[in-house]
Amino acid sequence: MKELKNILIDPYIINAIKEDITFDDVSTSAVIGDEIAEVDLIVKEDGIIAGLDVFKRVFEILDEDIEIEFYKKDGDLVKNKEKIAKLKSKASVLLSGERVALNYLQRISGIATYTSMMIDKLKNTNIKLLDTRKTTPNMRIFEKYAVKVGGGYNHRYNLSDGVLLKDNHINAAGGVKEAIKMAREYAPFVRKIEVEVENLQMVKDALEENADIIMLDNMDFETLEKAINLIDKKAEIEVSGNITFENLENYASFNIDYISSGALTHSAKILDISMKNLKVLKE
Amino acid sequence: MKELKNILIDPYIINAIKEDITFDDVSTSAVIGDEIAEVDLIVKEDGIIAGLDVFKRVFEILDEDIEIEFYKKDGDLVKNKEKIAKLKSKASVLLSGERVALNYLQRISGIATYTSMMIDKLKNTNIKLLDTRKTTPNMRIFEKYAVKVGGGYNHRYNLSDGVLLKDNHINAAGGVKEAIKMAREYAPFVRKIEVEVENLQMVKDALEENADIIMLDNMDFETLEKAINLIDKKAEIEVSGNITFENLENYASFNIDYISSGALTHSAKILDISMKNLKVLKE
Amino acid sequence: MKELKNILIDPYIINAIKEDITFDDVSTSAVIGDEIAEVDLIVKEDGIIAGLDVFKRVFEILDEDIEIEFYKKDGDLVKNKEKIAKLKSKASVLLSGERVALNYLQRISGIATYTSMMIDKLKNTNIKLLDTRKTTPNMRIFEKYAVKVGGGYNHRYNLSDGVLLKDNHINAAGGVKEAIKMAREYAPFVRKIEVEVENLQMVKDALEENADIIMLDNMDFETLEKAINLIDKKAEIEVSGNITFENLENYASFNIDYISSGALTHSAKILDISMKNLKVLKE
Amino acid sequence: MKELKNILIDPYIINAIKEDITFDDVSTSAVIGDEIAEVDLIVKEDGIIAGLDVFKRVFEILDEDIEIEFYKKDGDLVKNKEKIAKLKSKASVLLSGERVALNYLQRISGIATYTSMMIDKLKNTNIKLLDTRKTTPNMRIFEKYAVKVGGGYNHRYNLSDGVLLKDNHINAAGGVKEAIKMAREYAPFVRKIEVEVENLQMVKDALEENADIIMLDNMDFETLEKAINLIDKKAEIEVSGNITFENLENYASFNIDYISSGALTHSAKILDISMKNLKVLKE
Amino acid sequence: MKELKNILIDPYIINAIKEDITFDDVSTSAVIGDEIAEVDLIVKEDGIIAGLDVFKRVFEILDEDIEIEFYKKDGDLVKNKEKIAKLKSKASVLLSGERVALNYLQRISGIATYTSMMIDKLKNTNIKLLDTRKTTPNMRIFEKYAVKVGGGYNHRYNLSDGVLLKDNHINAAGGVKEAIKMAREYAPFVRKIEVEVENLQMVKDALEENADIIMLDNMDFETLEKAINLIDKKAEIEVSGNITFENLENYASFNIDYISSGALTHSAKILDISMKNLKVLKE
Amino acid sequence: MKELKNILIDPYIINAIKEDITFDDVSTSAVIGDEIAEVDLIVKEDGIIAGLDVFKRVFEILDEDIEIEFYKKDGDLVKNKEKIAKLKSKASVLLSGERVALNYLQRISGIATYTSMMIDKLKNTNIKLLDTRKTTPNMRIFEKYAVKVGGGYNHRYNLSDGVLLKDNHINAAGGVKEAIKMAREYAPFVRKIEVEVENLQMVKDALEENADIIMLDNMDFETLEKAINLIDKKAEIEVSGNITFENLENYASFNIDYISSGALTHSAKILDISMKNLKVLKE
Repeated sequence: MKELKNILIDPYIINAIKEDITFDDVSTSAVIGDEIAEVDLIVKEDGIIAGLDVFKRVFEILDEDIEIEFYKKDGDLVKNKEKIAKLKSKASVLLSGERVALNYLQRISGIATYTSMMIDKLKNTNIKLLDTRKTTPNMRIFEKYAVKVGGGYNHRYNLSDGVLLKDNHINAAGGVKEAIKMAREYAPFVRKIEVEVENLQMVKDALEENADIIMLDNMDFETLEKAINLIDKKAEIEVSGNITFENLENYASFNIDYISSGALTHSAKILDISMKNLKVLKE
Repeated sequence: MKELKNILIDPYIINAIKEDITFDDVSTSAVIGDEIAEVDLIVKEDGIIAGLDVFKRVFEILDEDIEIEFYKKDGDLVKNKEKIAKLKSKASVLLSGERVALNYLQRISGIATYTSMMIDKLKNTNIKLLDTRKTTPNMRIFEKYAVKVGGGYNHRYNLSDGVLLKDNHINAAGGVKEAIKMAREYAPFVRKIEVEVENLQMVKDALEENADIIMLDNMDFETLEKAINLIDKKAEIEVSGNITFENLENYASFNIDYISSGALTHSAKILDISMKNLKVLKE
Repeated sequence: MKELKNILIDPYIINAIKEDITFDDVSTSAVIGDEIAEVDLIVKEDGIIAGLDVFKRVFEILDEDIEIEFYKKDGDLVKNKEKIAKLKSKASVLLSGERVALNYLQRISGIATYTSMMIDKLKNTNIKLLDTRKTTPNMRIFEKYAVKVGGGYNHRYNLSDGVLLKDNHINAAGGVKEAIKMAREYAPFVRKIEVEVENLQMVKDALEENADIIMLDNMDFETLEKAINLIDKKAEIEVSGNITFENLENYASFNIDYISSGALTHSAKILDISMKNLKVLKE
Repeated sequence: MKELKNILIDPYIINAIKEDITFDDVSTSAVIGDEIAEVDLIVKEDGIIAGLDVFKRVFEILDEDIEIEFYKKDGDLVKNKEKIAKLKSKASVLLSGERVALNYLQRISGIATYTSMMIDKLKNTNIKLLDTRKTTPNMRIFEKYAVKVGGGYNHRYNLSDGVLLKDNHINAAGGVKEAIKMAREYAPFVRKIEVEVENLQMVKDALEENADIIMLDNMDFETLEKAINLIDKKAEIEVSGNITFENLENYASFNIDYISSGALTHSAKILDISMKNLKVLKE
Repeated sequence: MKELKNILIDPYIINAIKEDITFDDVSTSAVIGDEIAEVDLIVKEDGIIAGLDVFKRVFEILDEDIEIEFYKKDGDLVKNKEKIAKLKSKASVLLSGERVALNYLQRISGIATYTSMMIDKLKNTNIKLLDTRKTTPNMRIFEKYAVKVGGGYNHRYNLSDGVLLKDNHINAAGGVKEAIKMAREYAPFVRKIEVEVENLQMVKDALEENADIIMLDNMDFETLEKAINLIDKKAEIEVSGNITFENLENYASFNIDYISSGALTHSAKILDISMKNLKVLKE
Repeated sequence: MKELKNILIDPYIINAIKEDITFDDVSTSAVIGDEIAEVDLIVKEDGIIAGLDVFKRVFEILDEDIEIEFYKKDGDLVKNKEKIAKLKSKASVLLSGERVALNYLQRISGIATYTSMMIDKLKNTNIKLLDTRKTTPNMRIFEKYAVKVGGGYNHRYNLSDGVLLKDNHINAAGGVKEAIKMAREYAPFVRKIEVEVENLQMVKDALEENADIIMLDNMDFETLEKAINLIDKKAEIEVSGNITFENLENYASFNIDYISSGALTHSAKILDISMKNLKVLKE
């Protein structure tokens, strides 16, 4: 995803705002009237910023006239203490929208940062880093976007836009070859067919039926090497199985096309960002 | 929250399922018909299990006749390789619901586990551990529940059910005392009034206006000690500010009522759990 | 609530408009084209006006360019025959939105007026008047707002933002003291604990467990007096039980903090208001 | 409406429950576990009961296995202190659903009772009593049903299912005759055409264009009599204009077909009903 | 319907856009950035254009600043190859919204064209052409509008805004007369009563009970003639039963008021229209 | 799609029912009480039946206890006058759900029938027939399913699950080769890349960049033949451009992989089906 369409993300954002305000922001209503204010958006640790449009959209939904000036754009490196935006709106809007806007921005930036760190370990290779479907419920569109901003690539979005035959599918079908045949008959068009394999015989079967992509799952390095040789460029190769920042470089020297990592979306920590220096403007 | 009401969580779960299936689970439809199957739910690392009802609800929404037998209940300690449930339903339902059900279960259990680990460090104290509003958008009801299962307590749910006067509110009001007075006038009933303070003068002001709870935010240990002595049981004390598993024990010796930690919901890693051994039943 | 956020009220208003128009305003479409018109908003009996923003929002949803000039603001006293606003928009918008806009405005103003009349009877006391949860389904946010405009205060918004232990809770818990202890253990933070009592023994129990608020429900005046003396400022006191405009002054002389009245939201009659003098503008 | 279809009322009821529970019924969760209990539904003043299915539906949505035994049905006369139903379910469900279920039942019964009282004044006539569109937003389907149960009849449901040409339509069209012609051309089929008139000339015009129904609005009794004679059974006659229980009998002697009253839905007080005697069942 | 209100059609359009974009327009995002472009709307066969506001609304929802200049208005005759509009917006918006906008416009125009062709065959008669409820699910408001633009009239919108007693109703009631009596008692106000009859005895019964409209369903021409004579202007007459463009003129010579045709909405083919000549604008 | 999941189709069906019932089925409520009845589902012309689960689901949503016995299954050939199902439920449910259930069934069966007729013309070839995105708004999941039942295959579901580079994309990218490169860079994984070409140079360019599928759009037969020879099995071939039942066989002799036809979903006429012989059961 190059950008996030409002029509797709608004329902999530609106619900997230309602999750945070049942009927009133009691503290803010108690002390604030119609005053206009400015506030800064400050980064509190180094990383890659991502999700600025989502951050902005939270406030636009609360006040269509809000003014936000960004000094960075998605994908930029940001430094601790750096001021990356200034917001101007009603003070009450700035306070009521703050937490939801930051909850999105911190998580999206956290994933982009983590992805970018992993990519860095693959920089002298041709291997592309992929995400998975191990995303937080109701956050997938944001999290897959974050992976793209961080330099990664998206695997299939969901169960409808890609064929991936895993162990349970293969068992149900009666074998690798049968599963591939059934998938090609069922969905001959548009979709590539990927099959997850665990040993060399399965690799051979997958090749024999011309799988488009072969996923080598949780293989030891020796088997992995043999599988890669067997495939010999006749299919694309994806490697997966608990690959994280810590163990990624073990895979960098292999001659493979893709590495996929669930950790990108389920283990990235947030990037610490906050809104500071609220200043009520005198008229 | 002692339990999660279906009427409140169903909209989230239904949307999460749709996030994962636009129109068809292509891989599953290709290889599977109406067969009934069983599958095991296996934990892959030690931790506290939480969210079993949510896990179950995902499948119930896809198949109201699904049979699930749980061998553990929320809050139980689970061990690596432990089988914690058996599911029986149409094979297609088990495969299509798997990822969403696990995405919920892994995250909720991850937070419960992390909370439990932090609680453990407070076990010889009377300090209660609190969560914050730094939750994942559209996951708050699940994440706050996870904190409870892990042994923590919930701070306010959102902006509507508690008064917490922070720096920006205090600035806008013109001072700690003014802010407390305005909050008491605005919302005199039901809600306690909590005020976030940064120095000893603010503590004095808060005491003078009889704040119910005083949050000592990001204080060094010396100031913290002085603040606690000043308060002298005349208000409840919450300590906050980047408190995580790593630094928590530094605070355990203080005579305070609560510690709040955003890390509970924004930094907990998932608990690894998977569905294995799908077995199609012969008729 | 100081104001009603659009993000929270729009779904109600949009649905109310759809309740009144399935597919077409047949009468209006039959006789009116694109003409622009003006119309007056006229009050037809004395009272307190409230809900002008809701009135306006109905029309804004139908025509974002509508022009409305208000001569009064929420909380103002209005007189029979007084013109309180002028609207300018397409004639078809003015006619199609009229009924829904008035249905909201009349009800919100009716509650504000009734509240204000009750407040008037308490004017020489320090007693605060509270609403209850006896609101019209899907009207709570509007009705609780109306009570505030009328000079009253809001009791808890719903079951999630306050603890109120009633007879059934006390029975289930095994007594007043047990119920308070359980509530304090379950929700130690933010929420005050209120307990509803019916006799002096229950008052004593509540005091012993340091209830924050004691609700004296349906007590005769003699018992009421004794209860107040027993409490002796050690807890806040709320009095309730079929209190309406007619019998309110019987309670005004007691030394209590709050009186709550369901009648505010379930018995207030509407304030009669209408849109008159529609004038099609010549170009 | 003879009955209320679940598919139509469920969205309102579900939203009303969520209005009352953001995330947890804190008081109930604190003191109650999985206990099963019984509770009685008791009427606290004489009236007509209506809305029992809605009352039941609230609880069914919370617990599909709830058992409710009704001793009365919609339209029955009920007496103060009469027990009209017994409910059995989890104690927590009975407590959490109580307020929403009663808020619906009390209002629907209140309107049915008020309608029935007005009908009583028309009992020796052939005049039918009609409701209006002056209903509470998002309550129309329930309130129009209540009018039917009370013995009244429904005027058009909304702007889409009936043609009613009022003063503003007539002005815009350029006169009574023009308005009727335009309406007949626009919507020739299915809909009767009703026109609201204020004087005898308008009555003549309406007759000349064969209006199906003529609404005599706010006429003094003398003019009313003349209008009725003019019409002379050539159109149906509806009389309207601030008609309430207090002034209804002034109109009972006229030879008219319908009287419509907004008061039915905007001025009826609730019927007091409560849930009492919750009894936890021992196993 | 004279026009389609945004508040009523937006939910359909928004869902239709989401039906076509789960998370990203992959092809467009791959090749297009922020460029502004123009594109033409070209008709590819002769017909009646209808639904231009719907076409426009699709794009407005994606980009509120889109500029569309229409050279035709709803109801106009359009010719093959005629350019009927020019659009200017972001190239990505024009490409992503194209299919949904055209899917609406082609269908609405197709129905208007087909209706117009049928109307043409009735041009020397006073017979009005009516639609039915045989519309595409979730397209009724658009399809009934299309019939109006094409020169037809709308029968009842749905089951709630008209009484039409069909064979099954009559059987259940015990006969034509009983059914009419029951309908008049149940819904005396606003609605005309129409009854569907199959033979002359039923016609007589309907007349005896003063049905407002009699639908002569699937009668042979001889019986039809007799029925018309029997009715003799004492009720309005609707003729129905598999009437299409091909057989319509057989009915044109009868002295009847209405002909209804399900084919208008279930058999009209689309009008071919496309967006061509996208031109990226240089800055 | 092998089947339609309830979680995906229920929102459409529920809305379609509400489209047909605003508040009451007036005719049915007038004449019918609680009677149980049976009714037959009868086909009125030869064709392929499809959508029986959708038909059933409409009634299940109105009455979860409805009994339906089907004598045919999706994909079966049905004959004029054939009885294909018997339904038993409350008479009011059968009457109120009839139109919506039939509107779905007739359209889905119509598309399946038309698809099957077209497939028949390809029966001695290896060419697969594909649908397009020219579906009725909010009907895509049903219409694409119908094509599968009729023996066709689904092209991409929407803009998110396939890459198809059309003229406008190619122009924006600056040529066929550039567009393919950009698409491969943007979405390297899972998705095949299809490109629409209009002349032989574009074919060569597409081959040079290894497009997975080449769509030959609106080519004359001579050019088509040359293009096929050029491609020479190095890419899959799809032919498109106003292909309908009438002209399909012109393409059957070519050595191509796919033919796509928008007519499948935008020009298929309905299959006439009705519910007949409603019989109220005596107790």
